[in-house]
Amino acid sequence: MSAINHQFKLIQRPVGMVGRSNFEYTQTPAPEPGEGEFLVKVLYLSLDPAMRGWMNDSKSYIPPVGLGEVMRAVAAGRVIASRHPKFPVGAHVTGLFGVQEYAVSNGKGGVALVDPTLAPLPVYLGTLGMPGMTAYFGLLTVGEFKPEDTVVVSGAAGAVGQVAGQIARIKGGRVIGIAGGPDKCRYVTQELGFDACIDYKHEDVKTVLKTHCPKGVDLYFDNVGGDILDTVLTQLALHARIVICGAISQYNATGPAKGPSNYLSLLVNRATMRGMVVFDHVAQFRNAMQDLAGWMKEGKLKTREDIVTGLENFPEALLKLFRGENTGKLVLKVADA
Amino acid sequence: MSAINHQFKLIQRPVGMVGRSNFEYTQTPAPEPGEGEFLVKVLYLSLDPAMRGWMNDSKSYIPPVGLGEVMRAVAAGRVIASRHPKFPVGAHVTGLFGVQEYAVSNGKGGVALVDPTLAPLPVYLGTLGMPGMTAYFGLLTVGEFKPEDTVVVSGAAGAVGQVAGQIARIKGGRVIGIAGGPDKCRYVTQELGFDACIDYKHEDVKTVLKTHCPKGVDLYFDNVGGDILDTVLTQLALHARIVICGAISQYNATGPAKGPSNYLSLLVNRATMRGMVVFDHVAQFRNAMQDLAGWMKEGKLKTREDIVTGLENFPEALLKLFRGENTGKLVLKVADA
Repeated sequence: MSAINHQFKLIQRPVGMVGRSNFEYTQTPAPEPGEGEFLVKVLYLSLDPAMRGWMNDSKSYIPPVGLGEVMRAVAAGRVIASRHPKFPVGAHVTGLFGVQEYAVSNGKGGVALVDPTLAPLPVYLGTLGMPGMTAYFGLLTVGEFKPEDTVVVSGAAGAVGQVAGQIARIKGGRVIGIAGGPDKCRYVTQELGFDACIDYKHEDVKTVLKTHCPKGVDLYFDNVGGDILDTVLTQLALHARIVICGAISQYNATGPAKGPSNYLSLLVNRATMRGMVVFDHVAQFRNAMQDLAGWMKEGKLKTREDIVTGLENFPEALLKLFRGENTGKLVLKVADA
Repeated sequence: MSAINHQFKLIQRPVGMVGRSNFEYTQTPAPEPGEGEFLVKVLYLSLDPAMRGWMNDSKSYIPPVGLGEVMRAVAAGRVIASRHPKFPVGAHVTGLFGVQEYAVSNGKGGVALVDPTLAPLPVYLGTLGMPGMTAYFGLLTVGEFKPEDTVVVSGAAGAVGQVAGQIARIKGGRVIGIAGGPDKCRYVTQELGFDACIDYKHEDVKTVLKTHCPKGVDLYFDNVGGDILDTVLTQLALHARIVICGAISQYNATGPAKGPSNYLSLLVNRATMRGMVVFDHVAQFRNAMQDLAGWMKEGKLKTREDIVTGLENFPEALLKLFRGENTGKLVLKVADA
């Protein structure tokens, strides 16, 4: 291979908001696959809130990205050279290929074959990828969803939220979204079919939440943390469950995260707040994929991808995510084919 | 009856620390029991952190005490007049009789007959009363205790903490207490047999916790909230459980409670934080009583009551509780017999 491999390496851990200065944009010759390996040409990169956490040098569910290492990212691509029988040339794959144009893989660590004739590749980074799995297991397993639940989903127009809310609707729940701005709220109610959506930028969340959830919130799927988590805590129903899926409002904070000062509502309402990491549910991914793909085929589950183009725009695309400027799953297109 | 009934009525809701000015100390003739009722002479009053919450005019698991009403309190007493066949004169009872010398009851709302020949009356307000029940169900049911757990208990020298930690020990767990001051810590380790006790007033909780829990905290029984909760969150083991039993450090705060800013440790560790209210477990109280009384008889479960004397000292006794000056269950002795 003589192709050039452009890469974004992490060279500085961010303090506060992530930015271009945390990365070095470099190039190196594309690697050659060894025995039992294959070479992937990256076509789409997934931009995920979790990436911000991977940049911190602190204990988490996965080691931090080392300084000088290619930034970690889930990606979808095409096998262009192979010495691995299960991943032949021409196959399409998803995996943790990193923020670069070419990656060598041995097929381990969650690499999956995907079929771009069944769904476009970006969908395998969203609804049929980690965000879809996160929504599925967060709502149904961790959140112990019941059809009689009134469900609230924050980040409702985001990659995970859009799926979580629709699954709850499909299974018979009442679903209230929380999103930033009228456009996102229109998307959530009119395209995705949520029962209502609260525009936290222009509405008083507590007041509107009370109106939409007169009997309280049974299940809160939290993607954002901060003030919204604190407000939803004041409106819990008895035996409510809160799924802590993420806290995008807090990831770029310079000080400690804002703790939920209304957490004693858990006591008053005998409620449960539980954290989740999608990788715990790998053994059940196949079932979830079948359900999600089935609902998509039936037209019950609609999702959108928000596609930015050009590997060189990676830092700005990541900022777009943390500024909440994406509607649907944010994906960076790296190459055409 | 011509006896005088001294009472403490709530006349002003506290802002910040509770004090004598929130109450009116009044007297009225002792009431007469009607048909199906009986008259209790109060002998001991239970002083509980929860009483502070009952004084706030906010939604909780029980309505607030109304202004002008006798302050709510659990008490133990003797039936001195009766028109109720199940509660004859001479019987001893516990129930929500309030901060007063005499109370009329119809036997409903959790009133229980107790036998002072089996255990002294104050024990029925502590280990064989609500605090004991809270410890038992908080640890075993809500906290899903397992014998291999490393358990941390805050307020370890308090009414609930002292019992919770000993139950965990009896059932095979390793137990670390957290308490304020060397005297309490000595009580917790030397008298109660906890594996260790951290003196949060003189030790760095995080550092000492790391030493005592090298594999992390599996179960945290929280009675105090605030900084200690936040610190324990940083030391959770995978799949840890936090029981939110109380938050005595926050009850007298003038602003919002301090939210646990390290709550994202729930996500990293797939951990669960769950609130509890003891009244949910009434149907199983009998089993718990048998276990607790059995362990006491066998000498496995030791507890202490801290007894203050004189109804007129009620406000100061309550302050003693919130200042953490009691070791063991704090009880106010109202009359000899």
